[in-house]
Amino acid sequence: ANKRNRTTEEIGCIYGMTAGKPPQFTEKYFTQTVDHFNFNSMDNGTFSQRYLITDEYWKKGYGPIFFYTGNEGDVWGFALNSGFILEMAAQQQALVIFAEHRYYGRSLPFGKESFNIPQVGLLTVEQALADYAIMISELKEQLAATDCPVIVFGGSYGGMLSVYMRIKYPNIVAGALAASAPILSTAGLGDPRQFFRDVTADFEKISPECRDAVRGAFHQLKQLAERQDYSRIQSEVALCKVPSSPRDIHQLYGLLRNAFTLLAMLDYPYSTHFIGHMPANPVKVACGIMLSGSDLLANLRDTAGIVYNSTGVLTCFDLYNLYLECADPTGCGLGFDSLAWDYQACTEVELCYESNNVTDMFPPMAFTEKDREVYCSKRWAVVPRPGWLKVQFWGDALSTASNIIFSNGDLDPWANGGVRKSLSSSLVALNISGGAHHLDLRGSNEADPESVISARKTEAELIAQWVKMERTKTRLRKSDTQQKGFI
Amino acid sequence: ANKRNRTTEEIGCIYGMTAGKPPQFTEKYFTQTVDHFNFNSMDNGTFSQRYLITDEYWKKGYGPIFFYTGNEGDVWGFALNSGFILEMAAQQQALVIFAEHRYYGRSLPFGKESFNIPQVGLLTVEQALADYAIMISELKEQLAATDCPVIVFGGSYGGMLSVYMRIKYPNIVAGALAASAPILSTAGLGDPRQFFRDVTADFEKISPECRDAVRGAFHQLKQLAERQDYSRIQSEVALCKVPSSPRDIHQLYGLLRNAFTLLAMLDYPYSTHFIGHMPANPVKVACGIMLSGSDLLANLRDTAGIVYNSTGVLTCFDLYNLYLECADPTGCGLGFDSLAWDYQACTEVELCYESNNVTDMFPPMAFTEKDREVYCSKRWAVVPRPGWLKVQFWGDALSTASNIIFSNGDLDPWANGGVRKSLSSSLVALNISGGAHHLDLRGSNEADPESVISARKTEAELIAQWVKMERTKTRLRKSDTQQKGFI
Repeated sequence: ANKRNRTTEEIGCIYGMTAGKPPQFTEKYFTQTVDHFNFNSMDNGTFSQRYLITDEYWKKGYGPIFFYTGNEGDVWGFALNSGFILEMAAQQQALVIFAEHRYYGRSLPFGKESFNIPQVGLLTVEQALADYAIMISELKEQLAATDCPVIVFGGSYGGMLSVYMRIKYPNIVAGALAASAPILSTAGLGDPRQFFRDVTADFEKISPECRDAVRGAFHQLKQLAERQDYSRIQSEVALCKVPSSPRDIHQLYGLLRNAFTLLAMLDYPYSTHFIGHMPANPVKVACGIMLSGSDLLANLRDTAGIVYNSTGVLTCFDLYNLYLECADPTGCGLGFDSLAWDYQACTEVELCYESNNVTDMFPPMAFTEKDREVYCSKRWAVVPRPGWLKVQFWGDALSTASNIIFSNGDLDPWANGGVRKSLSSSLVALNISGGAHHLDLRGSNEADPESVISARKTEAELIAQWVKMERTKTRLRKSDTQQKGFI
Repeated sequence: ANKRNRTTEEIGCIYGMTAGKPPQFTEKYFTQTVDHFNFNSMDNGTFSQRYLITDEYWKKGYGPIFFYTGNEGDVWGFALNSGFILEMAAQQQALVIFAEHRYYGRSLPFGKESFNIPQVGLLTVEQALADYAIMISELKEQLAATDCPVIVFGGSYGGMLSVYMRIKYPNIVAGALAASAPILSTAGLGDPRQFFRDVTADFEKISPECRDAVRGAFHQLKQLAERQDYSRIQSEVALCKVPSSPRDIHQLYGLLRNAFTLLAMLDYPYSTHFIGHMPANPVKVACGIMLSGSDLLANLRDTAGIVYNSTGVLTCFDLYNLYLECADPTGCGLGFDSLAWDYQACTEVELCYESNNVTDMFPPMAFTEKDREVYCSKRWAVVPRPGWLKVQFWGDALSTASNIIFSNGDLDPWANGGVRKSLSSSLVALNISGGAHHLDLRGSNEADPESVISARKTEAELIAQWVKMERTKTRLRKSDTQQKGFI
């Protein structure tokens, strides 16, 4: 889970580049309970939770509500990269809301003290879900929309939250589109080698030579490191400072591996500004570079440059400024949001992925439950609770759930941490061939593969069905309630 | 919700009187997480949660697990008054576990400091459910019972917890028998006049004259109070001290009304020792007394004596020792457990029932949301959150749930706060004609009405079906998981 903070100008620019006409989102703040689960909490007050809303397409008081369950970052980032939700809102006359996850963006319950201990303790999945449940319920009242069915949307961790909303609060949400949501792997149901194996597979798919070139480059780096030829490493990979310890080398490995992770996750068929700038088909671009001559280390440096130096202004890589090692081996991003995500990876969300240079092309980098425990206890004074998400959010025992789409793209290294096979007619797994990380949530683009066009069509149809079903249910419940004489 | 603490001798005695052969429960303690929802909690440790277990009937590693989700009191009280669960366990070769709710009985997370502020803050429904989810998961591992389907049982608030377990953790529990669970009224979906109207109806059912006698007695009491003839009140109702203020009179009204509440709730066709000692058919006994001569106040006193002086040793009623006014107008009982229940009624569980002498036979005693707020803020430094249970536990929007029996007896004033009509073939409402508060959970008795015999039969059949269905599901999921190569 990577993300960066963005300035307002950047946001305008990003949107301009991806869709043409900015949606008329209004930025608002919701008065939210700080602690839903303790009435004698350290803080029994409220905080301002940000959300974006547009009723541009809404049939007032009747059309459905499309609610994005914000994940680990500034909510504008998701709103501006989920154009499909708006396209569907236009078709289905929906109200659209993007809610910001507590402790991210500007939704900090304790302001700049939010990441102190113990204040950070109120950053949990359960609190975030309760935020959304309360926010939806109250906004429906405020907007005279009490009978409007709510569909939740989310990508990645946001998709996990969408699933959780549907399974834990089906009284509030009628269905969920969970795009690229690794709900199984993050609950400990998976293979720790899966993630980097699948990153590797993306490069191998371009060509086995590409994968071999990456592996070869890391091999050369390792040999230099073993010889302690640190100045050679500095010059070859263009580091700002000469590495001086195995720790620096480990950090370098992390930084480089993370570049490949992002290239694979964001392997869209057109250029994007979602997490930094990416060219169209970045894995292909990277493989072009990796195979562009015999200097493997120079190629490795230039490949990392796609991610870390897209503007070309950097003359060298600053090891500790560009990449932050954290409890998520797939990256935590930078800035305050990275602190929040590190905390979540240290508590509920399990992300113990390893690379080993056998099932993947990267240097061996283990991150075991034990490593996690040591790190998290030191960093945040917490003990991670493996298995907790599985107990709390059902793991793979999902058969009693309904109205959830699990969409995944086969280019996405997160895909195989999610549900890949339909479990019933209303628990639908969609595979998007040639799709990267939640491609389906993005606005339509000329370069879209047929697969995502088709997936979006299926998604829109299912969602329209759920909305219709929910209207019937509400009507039935209401007439029943009147008969019983409830107030 | 009334209950008293019991000594061990009493327990033996109680059991002896209700069933004949005591079940071989072993009393154990489970190491439980103190705070499931905050990794940087004021207490990140564990506490000892009590549970009772018997494998007397269990087909080891195969038979189902019948798990009672303990409610507001000492767990022995429930274990010894839920003989039906054991009878069914014998038929279905089940392991039986009765778990004690945190903050009740001996399951005090902070020992004698548990009811201090802020320690009491970890007493919530959500924490209790997480306790049970974790306990079930871990005990299944320990007992080599991972594939054994779990059915949860509960009466009253315990029945609410059973429903909540099934809707929030269907990955862990395959079905729930919720006996006399007022899940609607406690979530704010109800009429505040319902409860005492239905208590009144029980007495009216014996005879309208009985109801009129009760109303008449309260009327006389009121007249004496208005004349400030406090010494007459003392002598008529046998109070230990002369009342001296409207507050004392209010307390007296509460104490007396509570006697009628208990008589109605516990109107079983045989004598019981569940909440104190009750004769068989106590409402009938009370009406016999109420109509036994013209001195209405003496009759009122003697009726209260059924509840407060069953042993006949008291020579007078001590107003403030026999009854505690609290956030639950139907009574909180006495002792530490009453503190815990008061706190729950002050936070999540809404119990704003009123009597008004129009729709019921009692003195007008309002208890509005505002009254509740004032009381709770003063007593526990909390602000109740009306509507929270409805958001959190679905209110009457239960249609996506499955495998729940909502049983209610028509003598029970709690019944009409619950689900009275089946919502689907697997959300089954059972009415027990002539049944009081969760009569069906009690062991079979010669005096049982036909209705409860029939209800128990239906319950046992449905539960056997759920167990069977769950085995199939588990088998399917396992073979599916193997195909996917999950670890």
